[in-house]
Amino acid sequence: MLRIDILSAVPDLLESPLNHSIVGRAQNKDIVEVVIHDLRDYSTDKHRKIDDYPYGGGSGMVLSPQPIFDCIDKLTSERDYDEIIFTSPDGELFEQNSANRLSIQKNLIFLCGHYKGVDQRVRDELITKEFTIGDVVLSGGELPVLMMADAIIRLIPGVLGDAESALSDSFQDDLLDAPVYTRPTDFRGLKVPEILVSGDHKKIKEWRSSISEERTKQRRPDLYKNFNKNN
Amino acid sequence: MLRIDILSAVPDLLESPLNHSIVGRAQNKDIVEVVIHDLRDYSTDKHRKIDDYPYGGGSGMVLSPQPIFDCIDKLTSERDYDEIIFTSPDGELFEQNSANRLSIQKNLIFLCGHYKGVDQRVRDELITKEFTIGDVVLSGGELPVLMMADAIIRLIPGVLGDAESALSDSFQDDLLDAPVYTRPTDFRGLKVPEILVSGDHKKIKEWRSSISEERTKQRRPDLYKNFNKNN
Repeated sequence: MLRIDILSAVPDLLESPLNHSIVGRAQNKDIVEVVIHDLRDYSTDKHRKIDDYPYGGGSGMVLSPQPIFDCIDKLTSERDYDEIIFTSPDGELFEQNSANRLSIQKNLIFLCGHYKGVDQRVRDELITKEFTIGDVVLSGGELPVLMMADAIIRLIPGVLGDAESALSDSFQDDLLDAPVYTRPTDFRGLKVPEILVSGDHKKIKEWRSSISEERTKQRRPDLYKNFNKNN
Repeated sequence: MLRIDILSAVPDLLESPLNHSIVGRAQNKDIVEVVIHDLRDYSTDKHRKIDDYPYGGGSGMVLSPQPIFDCIDKLTSERDYDEIIFTSPDGELFEQNSANRLSIQKNLIFLCGHYKGVDQRVRDELITKEFTIGDVVLSGGELPVLMMADAIIRLIPGVLGDAESALSDSFQDDLLDAPVYTRPTDFRGLKVPEILVSGDHKKIKEWRSSISEERTKQRRPDLYKNFNKNN
């Protein structure tokens, strides 16, 4: 079973996404265990303070080393962790391959960045891997961590109802999906392509492949290059 | 005031992130209004069904056109929307510039993708803009929409306590941040760089700039090229 420990300064934010959708279901099925740690619970300060002003001046607050070191010390004394991950704009881009690799691990720690940052000593001494989800400035690392957890957890066998679903998604084969349609065939005069209701599965497969390729070539030439290389 | 309407098949998932952190604060300050719409509330089906099997076969369920058309019809009859946004792997990459642009709009609709996708007629007829947050397969569009909302909302004047904070973040100037440190100066023998406690603000500024440039050059040559072009 995969265990994910998430350290956060705003643990309440994590609640509803972890309790709903596939992550919640995976936890109920005992396929994954997600444990949230409120950094304030680890603060030795009498007011449970977990951040402070940056040395040298500047705006924003910096997460203090003490609560993070103490929390991670406790966890790593209890079990071996494969990675201790921090979300940072400096990090490696989190891509589908990152999710694939992490989904076969046993124990992962995610430290959510917050405020202006985290004391550099945490990054130098404790963190084994830094990931970014792209060049967007967010108020904290919580949403990126939730996204990474979702991407990882849905790949674990048994989490998705239909095993095929995870494999046939966009990016797993370097192609974008073909458009999808559902009932009714005629909605306000807008019709479903005839081929899809023809019952001719060979032709449908060909139609989808050709649109997938065309869409990828047009919208994502970078992905299309990979596809051509591998096929 | 910016109004954001979010249409979702799993609205409960959105709750805690929207009620905490800066998004929650911005709502309390009446700087932004976020309205969640449960697609089931718009379904004319007696079991409140909102998805169905894809035409032509395949795994996963597809969001039906009817609840989405009805919800968006209602909203657009009440006010003008600047963009109707859908999260899709085919979309344009959501970057800091996208957040900057959207933060000055008045009314935005976000439709969260889910299951295997959404009926293509919705995308063809209603959606004005498709965004992706990167090449990662997720179980739904909720987390990407929350991320986009966070990135947009924090840019609106008055949302962050310290106006400078949003501008000095990574990416706004094409440079990664310099490392930050907070108290104590000596934590378990790990020391804060002396320059930061020197009180010499000119030197601190120079030190930070040079590390920022160095880090960016090393870790993000693509950003560094932009920085050189603009400076």
